[in-house]
Amino acid sequence: MLWIDPYFPYEELSSTASENRFLRVFVDQPTELILTYTATVDVLHQELMMNQADFLSVKQLEGDVLTYLFPSRYCQSDKLSRLAQKLFGEIGSSYEKVVAITNWIYDNVEYISGSTDSQTSAFDTVTERSGVCRDFAHLGIALCRALTIPARYFTGYAYQLQPPDFHACFEAYIGGVWIIFDATKLAHLNGLVKIASAKDAADAAVASIFGSVKSNSAIVSCEALEPFIPFTYDPNHKMGVAY
Amino acid sequence: MLWIDPYFPYEELSSTASENRFLRVFVDQPTELILTYTATVDVLHQELMMNQADFLSVKQLEGDVLTYLFPSRYCQSDKLSRLAQKLFGEIGSSYEKVVAITNWIYDNVEYISGSTDSQTSAFDTVTERSGVCRDFAHLGIALCRALTIPARYFTGYAYQLQPPDFHACFEAYIGGVWIIFDATKLAHLNGLVKIASAKDAADAAVASIFGSVKSNSAIVSCEALEPFIPFTYDPNHKMGVAY
Amino acid sequence: MLWIDPYFPYEELSSTASENRFLRVFVDQPTELILTYTATVDVLHQELMMNQADFLSVKQLEGDVLTYLFPSRYCQSDKLSRLAQKLFGEIGSSYEKVVAITNWIYDNVEYISGSTDSQTSAFDTVTERSGVCRDFAHLGIALCRALTIPARYFTGYAYQLQPPDFHACFEAYIGGVWIIFDATKLAHLNGLVKIASAKDAADAAVASIFGSVKSNSAIVSCEALEPFIPFTYDPNHKMGVAY
Amino acid sequence: MLWIDPYFPYEELSSTASENRFLRVFVDQPTELILTYTATVDVLHQELMMNQADFLSVKQLEGDVLTYLFPSRYCQSDKLSRLAQKLFGEIGSSYEKVVAITNWIYDNVEYISGSTDSQTSAFDTVTERSGVCRDFAHLGIALCRALTIPARYFTGYAYQLQPPDFHACFEAYIGGVWIIFDATKLAHLNGLVKIASAKDAADAAVASIFGSVKSNSAIVSCEALEPFIPFTYDPNHKMGVAY
Repeated sequence: MLWIDPYFPYEELSSTASENRFLRVFVDQPTELILTYTATVDVLHQELMMNQADFLSVKQLEGDVLTYLFPSRYCQSDKLSRLAQKLFGEIGSSYEKVVAITNWIYDNVEYISGSTDSQTSAFDTVTERSGVCRDFAHLGIALCRALTIPARYFTGYAYQLQPPDFHACFEAYIGGVWIIFDATKLAHLNGLVKIASAKDAADAAVASIFGSVKSNSAIVSCEALEPFIPFTYDPNHKMGVAY
Repeated sequence: MLWIDPYFPYEELSSTASENRFLRVFVDQPTELILTYTATVDVLHQELMMNQADFLSVKQLEGDVLTYLFPSRYCQSDKLSRLAQKLFGEIGSSYEKVVAITNWIYDNVEYISGSTDSQTSAFDTVTERSGVCRDFAHLGIALCRALTIPARYFTGYAYQLQPPDFHACFEAYIGGVWIIFDATKLAHLNGLVKIASAKDAADAAVASIFGSVKSNSAIVSCEALEPFIPFTYDPNHKMGVAY
Repeated sequence: MLWIDPYFPYEELSSTASENRFLRVFVDQPTELILTYTATVDVLHQELMMNQADFLSVKQLEGDVLTYLFPSRYCQSDKLSRLAQKLFGEIGSSYEKVVAITNWIYDNVEYISGSTDSQTSAFDTVTERSGVCRDFAHLGIALCRALTIPARYFTGYAYQLQPPDFHACFEAYIGGVWIIFDATKLAHLNGLVKIASAKDAADAAVASIFGSVKSNSAIVSCEALEPFIPFTYDPNHKMGVAY
Repeated sequence: MLWIDPYFPYEELSSTASENRFLRVFVDQPTELILTYTATVDVLHQELMMNQADFLSVKQLEGDVLTYLFPSRYCQSDKLSRLAQKLFGEIGSSYEKVVAITNWIYDNVEYISGSTDSQTSAFDTVTERSGVCRDFAHLGIALCRALTIPARYFTGYAYQLQPPDFHACFEAYIGGVWIIFDATKLAHLNGLVKIASAKDAADAAVASIFGSVKSNSAIVSCEALEPFIPFTYDPNHKMGVAY
């Protein structure tokens, strides 16, 4: 449910280019606006066995997936190919490669609130080694694409995230399925509710603001209606989570 | 018609995210490959009167068009907003804004073959002031988006381009139609045959090559089967060309 | 006079490479440190007539000045040469060129506190068009060097600067003298007290901090002991200020 | 000995800021110029034992050395501090740190002629992982400075370099002495003849060209007048070479 206070008319938009829907609110006079959105959501996810033979070469990828191989505003995979090849090129399967990318980012990039801004990209983060969830996701995506693994940005709500906030992670296309990864290791992979997925944050903003707007604050909260058992990664049973 | 010499199987792919089609050739052994493609094409374009009231504000844009407002790999419009506003913000209509952008690029950026490479982006070109058609297009796109005018990359064949080659220019979304612009002023706007359009060259490569490939040469030629009268821009009759 | 509270030993250092002196304080235990420095300074400056024939070509520059022609960390003059040539290449004398650079920066870059950080360089500012005194100075320096005019960073105190703070501006080498310019137009050119000059802020930091230090606040104040008549730039009488 | 053919007058310049001398040739008419320089040089170097206690903290560095701690045009050490700390922070002595930096660059960056240009900096190379001797040196310098080890660019002739050319490597200030390192491992450390040393290539160009000049070719050759025994690095006997 959506409350717009004070009320302004809105409309829903969709695009053939993605599954994302846009909600457009047109505010034609200066005001202090409060947007409230609540929803009860069924989280449907699968836990899938990731086997050795999961690598889809470029010759097997569907037309809709190819775009996720190419560099984008915040994921300059074209600049990271030697580095990605050196760090992860020898690792066996796609799934193991992306797990290794996730671990490498977690081990090498420090999560520091406020250390980056809306212009920070994977090319910065790979060297400067600090950032927030968005930066961790962009770097993960860029490294996957540099290894010819399609990858996309995923933004959503994360159950039990501390402190509660929007979250960003990424999906890699493995064995014909989009498998989710979180290089910050802050969220339960089976406790995510998708807001949008896209090539990177440029196309998957939680809000795109045009005109002169000053943000005050955002309050995000998320609770489970049923008992929740966090998905735990077990290196012996290679399982991936897909939505 | 397509010849692949020596022959390897190929397939056609399309994507719901764009009108672009992909032709995928899988070469599984070392070879010297010659790809030849010829086509007879009906070029259907419209010459449209661009009037003062052509500006579509963000609240009027269709869902499919919104993505062309956002920054991309080579078009960092988020970094160019103050500059774009300063240079073009006062100009009246969208059409006149984009004509002014095109003229400004033409006047301020030198066309120098070989001065840039596949990593050069609008953020570089706006300062370094040299480049090729691809760079001119990326800068045009970035400046349009910075002014909230949707813009996309257009790559194609250009009749009477000297020397004959693939060409790149850009389209801006004005009054509900994609209008074509060429900041290099090298091509006739009504003599273009589209190969692809997309957010920028990252998504609209003439060829995306995976694996170890050495390019020898590309020969492009284009001839008219009927008499051709170049479209001439006339500042008194504001006409735009759309495909 | 210098107070270090609590007291730690310090030493003075100089370098043959510049006139700058360093004061090195070695703090070997965690503490809350207060540094207070006061001085009564004779400000000796000259107001010099800048004539048409003030351009020193590279063949006339002294060995010590050559280094100020080359790019540095925050002043990538090598990337700005076409732009500088296009904007200012036709202007007559060196002095008029630098006045035009100063005016162009003032007209095109917005002074916005907090819009940039310690990594922001002239290459960013020339496009992003916002910054603080340091960024204005770096862009001025880079544009001068791109025109083969030696230029260096000047940091100091500025009498009547509002709000009181350290200030940064730049010096250009014209007719054999370092003439001061302030693209922010916030300081009186004859009311400056130099702290340091160098190739750019990387070499002329007010303080270089090694180890884990958290800054609380800096209080800067500056008062005149004698009546002060601000230097006013008069386009009819081309005068430059040198220290 | 210097031949200038056809003859133009030249002068020698020096600077108090460095030991480098400049030779300035003023060519005031279009010509095809041949510069030939030959010299017989005594190469005086020391092989020094590098012990554990070689680390000079910032509090011990001389004033002239401090400038080599700061970032410069091609060595953005300020952006590399987390990465440097992560990779090399735990290693014992300064000498071992710089040996590890040298080995890491050698192992992770590919030497590819023509892969970079005069604008390429350490910030690019640390991610793109390809370059030439100049890029290897800049990255070495940036990593040293990020660890508070003063470092500077060294350009010179290298005996038995294949193919013969100018060479670039870097010096780190260890135990009060400038010790030479070559991350390309292409040159014998005791077979170098210094042309210049400086903060980076911006200040130590083999030639700085002003005006419109087209370079044809450079021929470099170097031969030994006495028997030459290459210095071989032996991890058991930690020896450094200083000039």
